[in-house]
Amino acid sequence: MFRKLAIIGIGMIGGSVAQAARAAGAAQSIIALDQNAENMRYAHETGMIDNAQNNSELLKDADLVVLAVPVRSYGAVMQSITPYLMPGAIVSDVGSTKRSAMRDAAQFLPQRLFIGGHPIAGREKHGPQHSDGTIFKDRWCVLTPADHAPPEAVQKLSSFWQAIGSNVEIMTAHHHDRVLAITSHLPQLIARTIVGTAAALEHELQDEVIKFSAGGFRDFTRMAAADPVMWRDIFLENGDAVLEMLQRLTEDISAMQKLIRAGDGAALETTFERAREIRQRVIDARQA
Amino acid sequence: MFRKLAIIGIGMIGGSVAQAARAAGAAQSIIALDQNAENMRYAHETGMIDNAQNNSELLKDADLVVLAVPVRSYGAVMQSITPYLMPGAIVSDVGSTKRSAMRDAAQFLPQRLFIGGHPIAGREKHGPQHSDGTIFKDRWCVLTPADHAPPEAVQKLSSFWQAIGSNVEIMTAHHHDRVLAITSHLPQLIARTIVGTAAALEHELQDEVIKFSAGGFRDFTRMAAADPVMWRDIFLENGDAVLEMLQRLTEDISAMQKLIRAGDGAALETTFERAREIRQRVIDARQA
Repeated sequence: MFRKLAIIGIGMIGGSVAQAARAAGAAQSIIALDQNAENMRYAHETGMIDNAQNNSELLKDADLVVLAVPVRSYGAVMQSITPYLMPGAIVSDVGSTKRSAMRDAAQFLPQRLFIGGHPIAGREKHGPQHSDGTIFKDRWCVLTPADHAPPEAVQKLSSFWQAIGSNVEIMTAHHHDRVLAITSHLPQLIARTIVGTAAALEHELQDEVIKFSAGGFRDFTRMAAADPVMWRDIFLENGDAVLEMLQRLTEDISAMQKLIRAGDGAALETTFERAREIRQRVIDARQA
Repeated sequence: MFRKLAIIGIGMIGGSVAQAARAAGAAQSIIALDQNAENMRYAHETGMIDNAQNNSELLKDADLVVLAVPVRSYGAVMQSITPYLMPGAIVSDVGSTKRSAMRDAAQFLPQRLFIGGHPIAGREKHGPQHSDGTIFKDRWCVLTPADHAPPEAVQKLSSFWQAIGSNVEIMTAHHHDRVLAITSHLPQLIARTIVGTAAALEHELQDEVIKFSAGGFRDFTRMAAADPVMWRDIFLENGDAVLEMLQRLTEDISAMQKLIRAGDGAALETTFERAREIRQRVIDARQA
């Protein structure tokens, strides 16, 4: 499908893309660029990539280049790779904010073919040691091509993601950022906030917070374990959409507060029933 | 250890206690009382309990009676069982609010020996079909005996929970309710609130919320799947402690909002780093 896949940043997600592409035969050869020599060596030794050298010259015949770095690094990364890209190469990414990716590509890869990509899959641990080529299976991958992107390139990139098991959805970067603000960024922000609230409790309560975390808190700590830099960048780049959703949530929290204060059991139960129906829809959509 | 264990309410948790006690040999015989004939039959057929009859007379020789019903049902349940309890029987429960349990026991089981209990373990599905006798292993079980409770009875109940694999912690009902407000009740409330916020979005966004839920939202829907009546009761009975923690969280959300609005990447990263350290403590405490 692709002759040579180059992954920029061989962390958990970059490594997972490499493994998935390898397993599906979606690229004849796979290389990576990453300043972390240990991760490069690990990825090479475990067969994710064909070469342990962090050498931009290797990009010269890559027909698919995928950025898998924190979204605020795109500008610098794009500037450093653009001299080496071959004509016609598709450049894409796996980042969680897409307006910023399209903006950076317009600025730093003006003569190149960039198609934004975001596989809605992942895990909280980082580094290629935690890569898993199966995480994209039955998950959605969103592509956000620019208006002028050639349809055959979009088609080719779609086929790549489909080959590794994902469903592909094409939308604008603006729409992506709004949907992800509620389905991913807001939950991740709130999880981190609650963990912080607990951490700020009086010292003698703190140990107990850890001890008795199995009742729900621990699930929030799991989300909060993901890479701080990656998530910092997401909130910086999708701040407006996250703030809009946060405003809605704050209103709903106030409403819930009132119900509890009033002891309105009937309304609480109705609210919880509705939330449970959404869970059923997630299960029905096989995203559970 | 106990001659006869009687479980009042053979749902997911009640069934799990039965299975765990059976596996550990912690009770010579096990019965249940539940108005749901289908659940009783299921529990009997699968060997959780020794008798499919919902017959209060069977309580007469039970030396351990465990309530496993929503916490707002305790008063009615206690009134209905008290005439059948044998002298010296230990009555306990597995509910998530302990001040209410102690209050109800003082009112409705005044001559009986009630020791509040709360295993910090569970799953979102309900009904005995989803019972699992292993969920208590390596989890904490909190006991909240009244001041006048005989130490040997507390010791006997502790041994029961230890026999099925739990660690036991003894504390006051007041302290329990405060700790659980932050480690369980608040996370559960917020998860349901966010799910509600998403459900209230414009219709065309809704399907996408389900589709792209793998980025975090889906974990919240999982929590929101748990029994609405059980959770309604928890928020009614621990409202004051939940409202206090909610107030702290609201302040922290405002602070986070400000950081995002100001684009303060350094402060966001520091906050996320701290949250990640808490995750490490949960892992170190083997509660992950």
